[in-house]
Amino acid sequence: MTWINENYLKLQAGYLFPEIGRRRKAFQQANPDAKIISMGIGDVTQPLAPAVVKAMKKAVDEMGRAETFRGYDDGGIGYEFLRKAIRENDYEARGVDIDIDEIFVSDGAKCDTGNMQEIFGLDNVVAVSDPVYPVYVDTNVMAGRTGGPAGQGRYEGIVYMSCTEQNDFVPEPPAEKVDLIYLCFPNNPTGAVATKEQLAKWVNYARQNKAIILFDAAYERFICDPMIPHSIYEIAGAKDVAIEFRSFSKTAGFTGVRCAFTVVPRQLKAHTKDGRVVEVGPIWKRRHCTKFNGVSYVTQAGAAAVYTKEGKKQIRETIDIYMSNAKLIRETLGKIGYTVYGGVNAPYIWLKTPMGVGSWEFFDTLLNKAHVVTTPGAGFGSAGEGYLRLTAFGEPENVKEALERIKAIS
Amino acid sequence: MTWINENYLKLQAGYLFPEIGRRRKAFQQANPDAKIISMGIGDVTQPLAPAVVKAMKKAVDEMGRAETFRGYDDGGIGYEFLRKAIRENDYEARGVDIDIDEIFVSDGAKCDTGNMQEIFGLDNVVAVSDPVYPVYVDTNVMAGRTGGPAGQGRYEGIVYMSCTEQNDFVPEPPAEKVDLIYLCFPNNPTGAVATKEQLAKWVNYARQNKAIILFDAAYERFICDPMIPHSIYEIAGAKDVAIEFRSFSKTAGFTGVRCAFTVVPRQLKAHTKDGRVVEVGPIWKRRHCTKFNGVSYVTQAGAAAVYTKEGKKQIRETIDIYMSNAKLIRETLGKIGYTVYGGVNAPYIWLKTPMGVGSWEFFDTLLNKAHVVTTPGAGFGSAGEGYLRLTAFGEPENVKEALERIKAIS
Repeated sequence: MTWINENYLKLQAGYLFPEIGRRRKAFQQANPDAKIISMGIGDVTQPLAPAVVKAMKKAVDEMGRAETFRGYDDGGIGYEFLRKAIRENDYEARGVDIDIDEIFVSDGAKCDTGNMQEIFGLDNVVAVSDPVYPVYVDTNVMAGRTGGPAGQGRYEGIVYMSCTEQNDFVPEPPAEKVDLIYLCFPNNPTGAVATKEQLAKWVNYARQNKAIILFDAAYERFICDPMIPHSIYEIAGAKDVAIEFRSFSKTAGFTGVRCAFTVVPRQLKAHTKDGRVVEVGPIWKRRHCTKFNGVSYVTQAGAAAVYTKEGKKQIRETIDIYMSNAKLIRETLGKIGYTVYGGVNAPYIWLKTPMGVGSWEFFDTLLNKAHVVTTPGAGFGSAGEGYLRLTAFGEPENVKEALERIKAIS
Repeated sequence: MTWINENYLKLQAGYLFPEIGRRRKAFQQANPDAKIISMGIGDVTQPLAPAVVKAMKKAVDEMGRAETFRGYDDGGIGYEFLRKAIRENDYEARGVDIDIDEIFVSDGAKCDTGNMQEIFGLDNVVAVSDPVYPVYVDTNVMAGRTGGPAGQGRYEGIVYMSCTEQNDFVPEPPAEKVDLIYLCFPNNPTGAVATKEQLAKWVNYARQNKAIILFDAAYERFICDPMIPHSIYEIAGAKDVAIEFRSFSKTAGFTGVRCAFTVVPRQLKAHTKDGRVVEVGPIWKRRHCTKFNGVSYVTQAGAAAVYTKEGKKQIRETIDIYMSNAKLIRETLGKIGYTVYGGVNAPYIWLKTPMGVGSWEFFDTLLNKAHVVTTPGAGFGSAGEGYLRLTAFGEPENVKEALERIKAIS
């Protein structure tokens, strides 16, 4: 008799984005002429940079000739040419010393943030922000690190840290002891960023409690304020207590290309129940090499082109388009009386619904009346109730039109 | 205090292929002039088919233009164009009815065979062949579905089914009850295939015991004998009890491109402890969509080209090259007195070491004396001791030279 993993049956609802897709599809079927504009799912719209296209086509050609063909990426942790570019541009350039052996290239930060929990014991206490990127929570539920539903979409056994207007959407370390802490800055979904001082509090907390921070920095490229750290490793002592996740998805339009990387510093340690200290890096590497087989060479060649002189300039231009969208969204919605957060150092705008209307209700209003798809804040946790997430990833003319429509019904 | 997943500490040795890499590297450093030929790791050498190259370059171009750019593969289970091609060519053409909603496109059969166990409970009894592709075992160890080491590289709690000369390397269903059964035909590493009658025994066993068969058919394209089934679904009743894994890696030279797929039939069920019946497909989909984010569009476009008229012809030519290698290896080694198995319907040749010499010892002999890298059978399990796995994936002139060198030292 085959037993199912019953932890999966604890999951409370379909994953957020499929549910949005379902509502959108139903609306479109009922209103075939409506031109729906998506400000919801965090997918990008600008094409790949020419430097990336060029590098990928060259790589495909190499794969088509016996003398330059490449099979498995040996070990599956990423080609040295890419890991060197990452080390140099993402870390060395910001004064952070990361070795290429501490960098693991993968096919997505979603995968890495979802898989990382697996190498830790089931009795670690997990802390997440609320609202939160659902993957952090759902993957811990699947693993059995939680109890059942605890109301308001929460689960027993997880420590939720509410992010509200009162704390500027950046939580303080909790009073109790927790072991694994998911942080995401610039934040998805609120668009909040953490200062060095705020991150230092977390690093100190982790050091004092021998906890590990899982730091999702997938949106670091959208930071405009020079005082905001891009990497948690800009905080002294962080390499002892933090794993960092990065992605090319939003940075370089790779949502349909699939490339990301994770940094597990050599000095990062975890513990056994009988008091031994274990290096985390080799355990992650063992998982990576056993359950994954590397990223397409073509993709890695494209990712490396992001770091060339041309690539950097082109990527910057694309990000500037998105950040102009963000500015327009913030300013327009502010002018017509909405309260909005984020969108300054992040591609996400966190919109407070008017007069305390529920997230899904306001989602439906905007879909039905303005034909604009957004993401209900409640889908990210109970503290997201009363908010919508808007993204800056649309095409500028669509963003303008969506805002006009929202203005018209407001 | 962060606790490590102590199941990882039960793993007995580094993953097989890194250990081979280490020995190869050490030999090369000590003998910088030696021209090593690899007949070991199952990586391919022939370039991508021209039809695939063309499709991938077209896809890259599409990704470089706003009007044809594609972001996330919605839902992450694969584009319809690819799933339709799979259904039609891999199943319909062989009289098997599989719906596109039962097909999940991924970045590798290694990933899928490694991840699938996760959706099943920890107290399922797992049965594997011995020798076995290490991923099946290691991922169950990591999950905690086994006890500690049981000697000879085995683990407590797993049912091992020895594949020997006596049973032609195809095990009978066990006398005891098991719940999750890993089968791989054409087999890696032995090169054995299962007849319809042999597979029917397994399907009957699974039906009688409400067990699930995890059927790895990554090498089906190498079957030459028209009587050998390519899919387990060619056996009546298999859709109730089997999940099938397929890959483009060896079929189409995608080891460095990364594409595969898994079939979870709609009627496949598992059980809860309190007696409920659960559909497996939606649970796998939930995992797939939560921990994975789809395969690169460029890769999927390349995979679809494998099913075009040109693509099929070109793929066939490449496979014929490999199968000529297999024939040459079998015949040459046979002539000089070795006992060899496999290599007829599979790209793997299972070589019995002379005079009962140990696998790693004979591996070292061939590396040191013939500068040929092989894969020690013992790395696949204790019943693999006394064998080496040779692969047919080399370039023909290298295969010839490797065989000449082996002849010279034999």
